[in-house]
Amino acid sequence: MPEVLENLKSLLKKAESKMVLLVADGLGGVPHPDFGYQTELEAARTPNLDELAKKSALGLMTLVNHGITPGSGPGHIGLFGYNPEELTIGRGVLEALGVGFHLQPGDIAARANFATRDERGIIVDRRAGRISTEECTRLVEKISREIKEIEGVEIILRPGMEHRFVLILRGEGLKEGVRDTDPQKEGLPPFEPQALDVEAEKTARVLKLFLEKAHQIIKDEPKANTILMRGFSQSPHIEKFPERYGVRALAIAVYPMYKGISRLFGFDTPDVTGDFQDEVKLLRDKWFDYDFFFLHYKDTDKAGEDGDFKKKVDRIEHLDQFIPQVLALRPDVLAITGDHSTPSLLHSHSWHPSPVLLYSKYAGVSTGTRFTEKECAHGYLGQFPSRALMSLMLANALRLGKFGA
Amino acid sequence: MPEVLENLKSLLKKAESKMVLLVADGLGGVPHPDFGYQTELEAARTPNLDELAKKSALGLMTLVNHGITPGSGPGHIGLFGYNPEELTIGRGVLEALGVGFHLQPGDIAARANFATRDERGIIVDRRAGRISTEECTRLVEKISREIKEIEGVEIILRPGMEHRFVLILRGEGLKEGVRDTDPQKEGLPPFEPQALDVEAEKTARVLKLFLEKAHQIIKDEPKANTILMRGFSQSPHIEKFPERYGVRALAIAVYPMYKGISRLFGFDTPDVTGDFQDEVKLLRDKWFDYDFFFLHYKDTDKAGEDGDFKKKVDRIEHLDQFIPQVLALRPDVLAITGDHSTPSLLHSHSWHPSPVLLYSKYAGVSTGTRFTEKECAHGYLGQFPSRALMSLMLANALRLGKFGA
Repeated sequence: MPEVLENLKSLLKKAESKMVLLVADGLGGVPHPDFGYQTELEAARTPNLDELAKKSALGLMTLVNHGITPGSGPGHIGLFGYNPEELTIGRGVLEALGVGFHLQPGDIAARANFATRDERGIIVDRRAGRISTEECTRLVEKISREIKEIEGVEIILRPGMEHRFVLILRGEGLKEGVRDTDPQKEGLPPFEPQALDVEAEKTARVLKLFLEKAHQIIKDEPKANTILMRGFSQSPHIEKFPERYGVRALAIAVYPMYKGISRLFGFDTPDVTGDFQDEVKLLRDKWFDYDFFFLHYKDTDKAGEDGDFKKKVDRIEHLDQFIPQVLALRPDVLAITGDHSTPSLLHSHSWHPSPVLLYSKYAGVSTGTRFTEKECAHGYLGQFPSRALMSLMLANALRLGKFGA
Repeated sequence: MPEVLENLKSLLKKAESKMVLLVADGLGGVPHPDFGYQTELEAARTPNLDELAKKSALGLMTLVNHGITPGSGPGHIGLFGYNPEELTIGRGVLEALGVGFHLQPGDIAARANFATRDERGIIVDRRAGRISTEECTRLVEKISREIKEIEGVEIILRPGMEHRFVLILRGEGLKEGVRDTDPQKEGLPPFEPQALDVEAEKTARVLKLFLEKAHQIIKDEPKANTILMRGFSQSPHIEKFPERYGVRALAIAVYPMYKGISRLFGFDTPDVTGDFQDEVKLLRDKWFDYDFFFLHYKDTDKAGEDGDFKKKVDRIEHLDQFIPQVLALRPDVLAITGDHSTPSLLHSHSWHPSPVLLYSKYAGVSTGTRFTEKECAHGYLGQFPSRALMSLMLANALRLGKFGA
């Protein structure tokens, strides 16, 4: 992709316009043989989205590249207008964001979990029987009390769901580039935390010492008697979204992961709990304080991941009911799309392009009467890379000047 | 975009075929709420274009990139098959082309205008009360008579509209890279013409001396007592269009700007005045002397810039009447498109993709019955970057050989 999308800053104009990016996580689907070969969007009754589609430009967005299934990181990197093939967020960092931890530059984060090993050191249960979140919290606190620091490096643990937790190393001279210790299957011993390049040697050594000490603490636990770790990573350097686009930017998301990614990009990320009604209420409350609103709806992805077609249809219909409330705020630009598709037929994220609806006074020609994959495939916006959505939104918000004389 | 488009030369084949690129400036539009949510192309009665659309391949062209509004320079750079994100034409150069000045390699051109400053040197009116074009011409002639040369550098001035004029420096050792002197707002003194790199120091010095002398000449003018300058630039090095594509290329345009851009690319650019009938007559007269004809129609853009929906509709209908005359010449390839969109709803150039119609015996599948944004959105050509139009035209003209064995 050419450079101009990376340099919108030089084209920015002042404007009072307001933009809403409503991300229905995993929105897109594929025809399901058990449901009349319809997609979830086709099967859903969505009078409000349909009405909006008639006044909007439609298209399909490629999230990372054709045939590539994005994780939540790359999915959102693209939506925020950055190149997901160039900018990456490590799995450990994502996990730390997911538990709401505020990473500092240089911190090493890892995704960790308790596991069970036998007397020979062989992993017999990679998930330690999925111990309860309470049990995990107890163990994490116990380890934290006894291991605070190794070679001057601060050791920070945060419990996650069930057997999962996050490990953070904070100190001088740390560097990502350490091999995962999780062997990915049972019947093997865990790997050593081995440095993959010279600069990561101190990090690997601290991790090794940490494991030795932690094993002493949990060695008599019936299930959670060892630890597996992966995705050792540091926060990437990111040009902040508000500076890049000249906007005051607010992220409204219930799940820590999306809040965390947004925080990494410099969004304000207030706490919001409850359901989507609470998110929309926050949107309304903050309407006059920001220019750009990233509004995240999780339910569509969850239902898709569960392979529950009817549930995903229901969650789309639920979302549809909030459209009038969003429109009542009179946004100058409203984009509705997903960060990837999650077809219930696949029970997972997928590579399918995400349907996108762009509503503004200047969005262009309306071609559809519904917001579905098929209508979007015929749409005026064509098929375009997700990282161009931001330039389209800014243009429609009349915030981009002319390129060249 | 892949490299092959930058290297079509190696694929060129000899052929007798004739190609016409008819650019209706600012052709594309967006639905207008005051006119039944139609675009200008939809509202226009265009029997000839409609008939042609039924035999042509349709598509939408992204001019620079998604959401990016092209100036006339980047718009035409793309149409001519060059990368508008890489090749840029400076503002001063464009301005010189716009007044019909024939730039030589190495010339420095700047966009200049008269302004008013107070006794402290502060700009109080950046446009000198928009003095008349006659007044501007008088002042430009007065300065030209007295300042012909500074440090061996020839000083050339050309009046423009109202308070605007063009300044050209011609001589040895000149280099672009001088800061604009226009502070862009009132209440500040003008900036010095400061060199932004070492090689531009002589240029900056000559400009400074020019300003000192010119100020002496105009110091007692009631309004036009100072000068602001911006966009100091030199013609870029451009691989000439006729060599790049192996064609004898003629540009037919009434407006100096488009003639000037074409000349920069190596088109023959005969003088033509009058209306589009005169342009089409020239096309007919020169039909056997050239292979490629760039035919520029300005009216659509002007009406769009005026925000005059009905006028733009009228100008599209006017253009439609000439289609049979163009077809009567039996071009092998005829492409009709814009260099950018100019929706009357926006009163300006816009980022919207340009509808394109490609007519040839081999153009591909016809999908529409009208030449409108909507039909083009569903077209066989899909949405593609404007700089691929040349390769499509050459291919349809059977002038491109096979790539690879």
